[in-house]
Amino acid sequence: MKVTVLVGGVGGARFLQGLKSLFGDNPEHEITAVVNVGDDVWMHGLRICPDLDTCMYTLGDGIDTERGWGRIAETWNARDELAAYGADPDWFGLGDRDIATHLIRSRMLRTGFPLSAVTEALCNRWQPGVRLLPVTDDRSETHVVVTDPDDPSGEQQRAIHFQEWWVRYRAQIPTHSFANIGAEQATPAPGVVEAITEADAVVLAPSNPVVSVGAILAVPGIRGALRTTEAKVVGLSPVVDGKPLRGMADECLSVIGVDTTAQAVGRHYGSRSGTGILDAWLVHTTDAAVVDGVDVQSVPLLMTDPETTAVMARTALLAAGLDL
Amino acid sequence: MKVTVLVGGVGGARFLQGLKSLFGDNPEHEITAVVNVGDDVWMHGLRICPDLDTCMYTLGDGIDTERGWGRIAETWNARDELAAYGADPDWFGLGDRDIATHLIRSRMLRTGFPLSAVTEALCNRWQPGVRLLPVTDDRSETHVVVTDPDDPSGEQQRAIHFQEWWVRYRAQIPTHSFANIGAEQATPAPGVVEAITEADAVVLAPSNPVVSVGAILAVPGIRGALRTTEAKVVGLSPVVDGKPLRGMADECLSVIGVDTTAQAVGRHYGSRSGTGILDAWLVHTTDAAVVDGVDVQSVPLLMTDPETTAVMARTALLAAGLDL
Repeated sequence: MKVTVLVGGVGGARFLQGLKSLFGDNPEHEITAVVNVGDDVWMHGLRICPDLDTCMYTLGDGIDTERGWGRIAETWNARDELAAYGADPDWFGLGDRDIATHLIRSRMLRTGFPLSAVTEALCNRWQPGVRLLPVTDDRSETHVVVTDPDDPSGEQQRAIHFQEWWVRYRAQIPTHSFANIGAEQATPAPGVVEAITEADAVVLAPSNPVVSVGAILAVPGIRGALRTTEAKVVGLSPVVDGKPLRGMADECLSVIGVDTTAQAVGRHYGSRSGTGILDAWLVHTTDAAVVDGVDVQSVPLLMTDPETTAVMARTALLAAGLDL
Repeated sequence: MKVTVLVGGVGGARFLQGLKSLFGDNPEHEITAVVNVGDDVWMHGLRICPDLDTCMYTLGDGIDTERGWGRIAETWNARDELAAYGADPDWFGLGDRDIATHLIRSRMLRTGFPLSAVTEALCNRWQPGVRLLPVTDDRSETHVVVTDPDDPSGEQQRAIHFQEWWVRYRAQIPTHSFANIGAEQATPAPGVVEAITEADAVVLAPSNPVVSVGAILAVPGIRGALRTTEAKVVGLSPVVDGKPLRGMADECLSVIGVDTTAQAVGRHYGSRSGTGILDAWLVHTTDAAVVDGVDVQSVPLLMTDPETTAVMARTALLAAGLDL
């Protein structure tokens, strides 16, 4: 069975872990993750791909499970030294172990390798057990139009990189819109469209609907592939009881005028029978939703541990018409 | 008083420390170091300048004094991770703190700043109290022609970077010659020629005569500046009792057919009254030397601590005809 999952960082990685655990060592099952690259950024001359790395480290047992991101047993000496130099930006925590990943990636990118090939090379070490595909090899970055925090008049608007908005400002500044810089010119990375159109099931992980799944959908060709695949497309709500399971999805949703409810997010994705991308929409047992033309199911959606998440992954496959 | 010193890494840095200690806080004295860049290398996408960094860290109190190079309280997690990835080269120890310096340098170089400007920026933090000038902003790297260690026939020769010869092979492979790659096209960095021609004294630190001072001299214009400056040029022998004070200067000297004696190194540099660069040549008290046209003095040359080194620096200035 071939399952393709559209994922962002922490939530997506945990869902993949559950799906992988569900499949065990059965070589007949293949998982492909189409990973958001909207968060990717050049910092201190290093190309940082937070979502790819979170997936790789989580599935390769290198993640700091408490933080949910970055390497276990991490140290922060290079970061402290960069700060001592006054190097800009000073609000992003580059871990010493993590830097090795970025050094290899940056060197390969500068040599001319596409991100998908770089990711494959890095995965040679981590053996994530899931094929990790960046949605695109092109630069497609999420930027955020905000009221310029440095403008005393408070009138000027400015676009900042998503990481600056998220990490530096914790999304707590007046925000007007998101822009997927480069997305219009981007094309899906090799294998991405096929992974969607040739899958037995396609799943939207319970990732941020705006800056994770939304940024994936901003790459031309992805939405079309989701709408034309013969597989069912099943979405999992990242919103439970009117709150995001993690991250600041509510801050992102409010910027695009979508309520932070499972129903509103389901409607935002919409039905394949209309102009949307969903066949089925899974909301948590305490939620209910009506989405035109979409099979909505209330099921447990809390990814407490890999075993619980495996059960949830099985529910998603059932909703896609598959059974193990 | 303006003193310009030609230096390599550890030995040169310690001499500068002594000279700085001799001058104390007197703002009328200026020290300029013309620093070897022959050891510089791109590794893992980072530009590493071992001699500049050793000088900067030593004079800025950031050096690991026991090792003599690299940062104090260093950790090695990025290095271990690079090795876990199987990244090449695996024989060079990049420290986590040190990496911050290389990240800033590499980013600035890629942006188009010359190495001299980068060095000045890095020194804003370290305040070395000595103007550190790379001998050239151009790429002028020491490579070593060796019998290819990977050739089973033992007949093939190959050029490897100096760092590979020094760090990986500890100079313990059949070696035929040195090549200063890029030196012929290189020009001295801004201020270097003036630092030599307008100095009150020029000193050759007790650095490696082949791969440190020799690599500096390989840059066109340096030898001419030394020969035409009105200041006296005083050299300090890095060889005492037929042994190098540190490093593997003997291995380097034997490659170019020069004996490892204070006299042979003095003759190798030669007299300004002939075709050489020396006015005076200081050898250790246990040594003696005759160098045509050069004022040879036997004086204590062991840099046991900054105070002893300050006395030695004073001796060098006296030999240049200056007194404090």
